[in-house]
Amino acid sequence: MVSVLLIPQSLAYAMLAGLPPQVGLYASLLPLLFYAALGSSAFLGVGPVAVLALMIAQTLAQAGPGVSPTEAALVLAAEVGLIMALAALLRLDALASLLSRPVLHGFETGATLTIAASQLPILLGSPVQGSDLIELGRGLIDTGAAWHGPSAIYGLAAVALLLLARRLGVRLAPLLILLLAMLIAMGTDAVSAGVRVVGTLPPLQMMLSMPRLQADLWASLLPGALLVALMGYVSSLAVAESLGRRARLRVNPRHELRGLAAANLAAAFSGGMPVAASFSRSALMFDAGSRTRMSGVFVAIFMGLALLILATPLAWLPKSVLAASILVAVLSGLSFAPYWQAWRYAPAEAALMLAVTLLLMFWSIAAALGLGVLASIALLLQRTAKPHVALIGRVPETEHYRNVERHSVECLPEVMGLRIDESLLFINVRSLGDVVQAHLRQHPQTQRIVMMMSPVNAIDYSGLEALRELHDALARQGVRLDLSEVKGPVLDRLKAGGWERWFKGRVFLSHHQGMVDA
Amino acid sequence: MVSVLLIPQSLAYAMLAGLPPQVGLYASLLPLLFYAALGSSAFLGVGPVAVLALMIAQTLAQAGPGVSPTEAALVLAAEVGLIMALAALLRLDALASLLSRPVLHGFETGATLTIAASQLPILLGSPVQGSDLIELGRGLIDTGAAWHGPSAIYGLAAVALLLLARRLGVRLAPLLILLLAMLIAMGTDAVSAGVRVVGTLPPLQMMLSMPRLQADLWASLLPGALLVALMGYVSSLAVAESLGRRARLRVNPRHELRGLAAANLAAAFSGGMPVAASFSRSALMFDAGSRTRMSGVFVAIFMGLALLILATPLAWLPKSVLAASILVAVLSGLSFAPYWQAWRYAPAEAALMLAVTLLLMFWSIAAALGLGVLASIALLLQRTAKPHVALIGRVPETEHYRNVERHSVECLPEVMGLRIDESLLFINVRSLGDVVQAHLRQHPQTQRIVMMMSPVNAIDYSGLEALRELHDALARQGVRLDLSEVKGPVLDRLKAGGWERWFKGRVFLSHHQGMVDA
Repeated sequence: MVSVLLIPQSLAYAMLAGLPPQVGLYASLLPLLFYAALGSSAFLGVGPVAVLALMIAQTLAQAGPGVSPTEAALVLAAEVGLIMALAALLRLDALASLLSRPVLHGFETGATLTIAASQLPILLGSPVQGSDLIELGRGLIDTGAAWHGPSAIYGLAAVALLLLARRLGVRLAPLLILLLAMLIAMGTDAVSAGVRVVGTLPPLQMMLSMPRLQADLWASLLPGALLVALMGYVSSLAVAESLGRRARLRVNPRHELRGLAAANLAAAFSGGMPVAASFSRSALMFDAGSRTRMSGVFVAIFMGLALLILATPLAWLPKSVLAASILVAVLSGLSFAPYWQAWRYAPAEAALMLAVTLLLMFWSIAAALGLGVLASIALLLQRTAKPHVALIGRVPETEHYRNVERHSVECLPEVMGLRIDESLLFINVRSLGDVVQAHLRQHPQTQRIVMMMSPVNAIDYSGLEALRELHDALARQGVRLDLSEVKGPVLDRLKAGGWERWFKGRVFLSHHQGMVDA
Repeated sequence: MVSVLLIPQSLAYAMLAGLPPQVGLYASLLPLLFYAALGSSAFLGVGPVAVLALMIAQTLAQAGPGVSPTEAALVLAAEVGLIMALAALLRLDALASLLSRPVLHGFETGATLTIAASQLPILLGSPVQGSDLIELGRGLIDTGAAWHGPSAIYGLAAVALLLLARRLGVRLAPLLILLLAMLIAMGTDAVSAGVRVVGTLPPLQMMLSMPRLQADLWASLLPGALLVALMGYVSSLAVAESLGRRARLRVNPRHELRGLAAANLAAAFSGGMPVAASFSRSALMFDAGSRTRMSGVFVAIFMGLALLILATPLAWLPKSVLAASILVAVLSGLSFAPYWQAWRYAPAEAALMLAVTLLLMFWSIAAALGLGVLASIALLLQRTAKPHVALIGRVPETEHYRNVERHSVECLPEVMGLRIDESLLFINVRSLGDVVQAHLRQHPQTQRIVMMMSPVNAIDYSGLEALRELHDALARQGVRLDLSEVKGPVLDRLKAGGWERWFKGRVFLSHHQGMVDA
């Protein structure tokens, strides 16, 4: 059943990547087997995926002349596999958390729109080609937006049938529509009518070939390979986790990385292209009850048979029909809801999401991902940069202490309660002293300050020095500094660092104790 | 009094920067006046400083041939001034917090050792020159470690006298020793004995000259200018803040930046070099009771007079004596205590400190600062990357809840209390669900989870989505998610983001309430 979806998708995504369609089929055979052997999820449909296909198309454009895209794709798959294997060895799987949700959502939307735009000319039989919007726009101007009637009829009819089948929930439809299109094209001799078809497949000797060992080719593809590896890993992990949660199965990120590395290396040696887990096919395998990794083996065997049977009719498949299946598949996942939700919650992050989308559509995937990660980190640093220090007082007749600006609470004249609302890290400690001194200026009778440390999750070395400077400055002013509710791990570190040599105050288990005891 | 220290220092630091000594004097005149007019601190001794001098020397080495160091220094000062002015306009003063304490300590030590190493050959009359250790080492090998007796006698005698004077606390000593050396050199005709002296100063027409407008020169100096501006600003701010705290005076970072911008632009138009606040001179002004910015004006006027009087004898000052004054000044500030303290507190940060020192000594200042900042950010991200989620129970007969692993506390069978010990940010939310599910597997009877949010200082958009996914996953498992002690600002944001549309649990003011109420 999954093979039914896999065949049209693998043909289409290979075309999207600018490769001959059969490369997609090859990339669905051995990689699936190797993932089944080394991966951790039982239901992950590994093979060609749309977003990676777009990244592959942009990366292959970097390869010099004299190298066929097919050869470059093998090298790229080998690099992706090696990078993933190295990352698994070095336990770099945590780097995936650098991709924040705004970057991921922005990326998905931008990639979907770019993919759709790149398929539109093929759907309409226009000669325009390109893997980004600027190339496509230039092509559109050069050709005067020419299109080709018979091709467009095939394409638009396929779109209509696919949408209808989706509405009715007929799962076999994509494959049937493809077969139908092949038969009609064969019967009516579509090629002589000018319809561009997939064409004769080369024999199977591409299987078990070596990727070309050529240093400058490997070097030119390396930056793209890093991005493909990162995105392939993150998107596959997301699929594995969201399906895994439904079945209460745990996903081991490092094992996933290992399985994907094996799948990509397999693709590199069997005429394929870089692969990852597809959400639609994985969900199908999951729904079909796949809980052992043998399912992947069956899918691969079925694909191998299909490859032998389909070789001849595939030559007659109109490219506009393949474009139709890509368009329908990617546009069904398009959603603008995250932009609106992020805008309501945090406008800066919504702006980041939109920026990633626009950068991807009008510049490049590398720029969108790179700047997106940097901007995420900058936002995180900015968020932790201002230490929020709240003056707190006692909620009458309880032992709870709350911000005086938000609650009606009682304060003592000579003992000041402050709550440090942030970990003390280098990015924010510069102003710690200033903020405390500002509170002190407003309450000049203060003789003792009790700092509530329950929101302080960590103190780095810069924070330690700032705390010591604050302690010493207060001591010179005749004010004693006490702490309350210091977290266990934080206190352990302070003690290990020998703070008893300079810290003269007391540490209280509860803030209330600290306020009332002397 | 400050002038007494300023004259030898400004001569010496100009030489350290690879510039004629009088450039240092020029850089002490107008810049001081302009800082007095536009800065915010009354006691900041702005002028040439040792660490910047080293950075200037390394930057000037980047200028192409055909440009004299003096001219390049003017362009550099102009760029530093413009960068500071731009930063003040764009309110970028917060960028200074990117320099963590480990980076600053590592930088100071590395710079001090490099400065000392660069002055040692001059002190001994060796022809070796260089602004980094590798250059110096190569020179030492090339010359066979040659040295020059009479120069070395001047230098070593000056070191001995300076150390003695420092021990006795004679403040006038540096200037007197310089004058003495000049007189002896003049009387004994040191030049014919082969002692290298400062030499005849060019006339004062360098004053009020324009920095050369030449695009490639400006471009080649720009990276260095950015670093000089950053370091000049950070070190001056540190001086202003540490002295300001003693007098309970507030420092306005943006006004400091404006004052330093004016001082550097003044240096660029009056034959100077980039300037910043010197700790030793500022401390002297502070001790002398300077509390209005007129003090700076007096120092500048005195310097102008000294320049006119000293022009002739200055030509006879042996360079080895200047080197002696640099050596004694910088080595007195050398301290390895921070390495040891950081090692005890956080070995990773101690390693960072040492790496910055070594990079600075054996590679370049730019590499040391750049990699140091990146490593600081990586450590910060790593520190916040693992969400610490603690299972908490009630301290018997109180309303306090503590980690079950550290305290002997009571738990309920069907209500689980969890404390999220970290802000929910993109870098750590990926595993939030996993951690909660792991606790749930150990307590399968749980029907309700109360998450204590008091340590959660912020939730970004990725955190919001992760919280929603956790909430929905728990709902599917029949477990209700409640929150307690959510901070005011965090709750405000959640409400603004429309969370009531999906959040079905309750929010309690105190965790105890959340545990016992239904």
